[in-house]
Amino acid sequence: MRKVAIIGVGMTKFGQHWEKDMVNLAVEAGTRAIHDAGIHQKDVDVLYGGTMSGGLFTNQEHLGSMLPDYLGFKNIPSVRVEAACASGGLALRQGYIDIASGAHDIAVVGGVEKMTDVGSHSVTKALATAADYEREAAFGATFPGLYAMMARLHMHKFKTTEEQLAEVAVKNHRNAMHNPYAQFHKQISVSDVLKSQYIADPLKLLDSSPISDGAAAIVLASEETAKKLCDTPVWIAGSGHATDTISLHDREDLLTLNATVKAAKQAYTQAKLSYKDIQHAEVHDCFTIAELLAIEDLGFAAKGASGKFIQEGNTSIGGKIPVNTSGGLKAKGHPIGATGVAQAIEAVLQLRGDAGKRNTGAETSLAHNVGGSGGTALVHIFTREKR
Amino acid sequence: MRKVAIIGVGMTKFGQHWEKDMVNLAVEAGTRAIHDAGIHQKDVDVLYGGTMSGGLFTNQEHLGSMLPDYLGFKNIPSVRVEAACASGGLALRQGYIDIASGAHDIAVVGGVEKMTDVGSHSVTKALATAADYEREAAFGATFPGLYAMMARLHMHKFKTTEEQLAEVAVKNHRNAMHNPYAQFHKQISVSDVLKSQYIADPLKLLDSSPISDGAAAIVLASEETAKKLCDTPVWIAGSGHATDTISLHDREDLLTLNATVKAAKQAYTQAKLSYKDIQHAEVHDCFTIAELLAIEDLGFAAKGASGKFIQEGNTSIGGKIPVNTSGGLKAKGHPIGATGVAQAIEAVLQLRGDAGKRNTGAETSLAHNVGGSGGTALVHIFTREKR
Repeated sequence: MRKVAIIGVGMTKFGQHWEKDMVNLAVEAGTRAIHDAGIHQKDVDVLYGGTMSGGLFTNQEHLGSMLPDYLGFKNIPSVRVEAACASGGLALRQGYIDIASGAHDIAVVGGVEKMTDVGSHSVTKALATAADYEREAAFGATFPGLYAMMARLHMHKFKTTEEQLAEVAVKNHRNAMHNPYAQFHKQISVSDVLKSQYIADPLKLLDSSPISDGAAAIVLASEETAKKLCDTPVWIAGSGHATDTISLHDREDLLTLNATVKAAKQAYTQAKLSYKDIQHAEVHDCFTIAELLAIEDLGFAAKGASGKFIQEGNTSIGGKIPVNTSGGLKAKGHPIGATGVAQAIEAVLQLRGDAGKRNTGAETSLAHNVGGSGGTALVHIFTREKR
Repeated sequence: MRKVAIIGVGMTKFGQHWEKDMVNLAVEAGTRAIHDAGIHQKDVDVLYGGTMSGGLFTNQEHLGSMLPDYLGFKNIPSVRVEAACASGGLALRQGYIDIASGAHDIAVVGGVEKMTDVGSHSVTKALATAADYEREAAFGATFPGLYAMMARLHMHKFKTTEEQLAEVAVKNHRNAMHNPYAQFHKQISVSDVLKSQYIADPLKLLDSSPISDGAAAIVLASEETAKKLCDTPVWIAGSGHATDTISLHDREDLLTLNATVKAAKQAYTQAKLSYKDIQHAEVHDCFTIAELLAIEDLGFAAKGASGKFIQEGNTSIGGKIPVNTSGGLKAKGHPIGATGVAQAIEAVLQLRGDAGKRNTGAETSLAHNVGGSGGTALVHIFTREKR
């Protein structure tokens, strides 16, 4: 398989875009990415797009045809993938396999979701289709509830506190202050989080990622093409993808996401790196507890130790392993299909040194994207040339 | 890229399965395919699944996690793709690229749709999400209407008759009589078709494929693995994928599916074959007019000549190029996501000589799967070793 680089990135601001539809958002992000790569529409060989449910959110499936049509990528092969909240990470991986295989030389990989065109009741219902509908969702176990059960067990087993959960949200809002594409530019305190309304005890409103509209896109190229077109390629050094039982209740250990562990192992092995070599990470913080679990499952903290690890500042910018410098799902926003691609964009900005006040100087970065309560996980590791 | 073979096939009967849900159907087809390949669950490295809209039909997205879970493919990477009615063909292509790339050695590729759990009004609405919702579906242009406009123009421009359209349905019902997995086992006549109710003038009920439940699966393997495991591998000699404007009204020529023409060109070029070398084809006959257009766009008949070509028996078993020996979408049934995979199964049965009374003795076969009104097309060419 060939080496693959990211040579361009582009995204919309995440947030509520009442004046734009799903296609507008995707075209904005895609156009920015190809402009950033210094290429033209006609140079794009193939498109990979991740979206969770165009059908349920906007009555629009078949984006594989619609997006190249509206982007001006005339007649190219175009693939829509879905893995619930990991749809964007999956699009990245499938684009990577395509270019690595030699099938094509330049791919645009995008993710998009338009969530605000339906009522918030319907959003929760649409999101619940990422769980086992007949065995979880139909009984009222929506995602806040499923993650709340994980949080409660983590607190029970490891003495994790609501304050420690809150620290995740506080850090991610702090990071988002410096990200112009983030949904929220509002510093919050631990006390703000603790005082916010319970959504599913012990998770509160400010433990939860928001409902968002947005799109993100990157341009992938084979090694030969990347070297011709780009002075600052970011290499995909490892790609991992694994699944687990879709239902939370079917797992032996509710506090380990097997899919994350296995996807991370694949990515670390391929990249010939360990967690100790990773200098920046974007992880899937759909709820604050999810960031704790991710930090443990990726190896940055021992199982059960993440609450203290975060509270001590190890995951802040300037800490041991800065996590979610972009603001994460919590503060950057979480337009489902776009999230996994936006994580890769933050990795690229960090490795290029283009993240402004968020810059960490990292030479290696990891992106971790989860579908459902852990039924799918994608882990990608990115590197740059030494400068 | 490596050579890839199909080493196992399995499907459910297509039809109304009131007693089974989407996962039951997928597990039945997947289990049959791995049994046919003589492998076990643990041998499967990766899963590719095509489904159009688990969300709209059954409130269930995230099948990429759910299917390996229920199939016993523990923790493997698993990819759900969607391209409307071409979702199955797209799953086949992405599985092919994966195995060809060297990423994995054995893939299960499946397609599934459960359409009868919602009312028929909602089925038409769900299917309409494969068109441009804001510019076609919202104005009432559902698929029967879009294909009816193509049929009317073909009749106007080329003197094609309603009898010639009817001949497609008659042939496909005749072929399905010998396919135990087909939804309909009922011979119909041209007069039956002409007397059936108009759905969208000039298309009648018996010009239209039915609403179906069903699943289909195949096992792909790399050349080395296939040769170890299988005496009768069927090789994927060519794979083509192209897109076109999602809206019918945006096309310069309403009677040429550019996506089909371009996908076919890619597949013929890769296989180093022309249309003259193809001895059997499964084409996308969602409506009878669609089979006429396919026969022209794939090269079997000149543009405008397909009505006469079919009427003269050239596409019947024993004719010049037998088309839809399985019964096609019209009579075998059209569970959206399963269709493209089921087409590949018929190709395999024909090339193995396992199609019973439908056997054509073909050594080369082509499968053609369309999404929407032609916004996506997939063309695959299959060959076997000379015997």
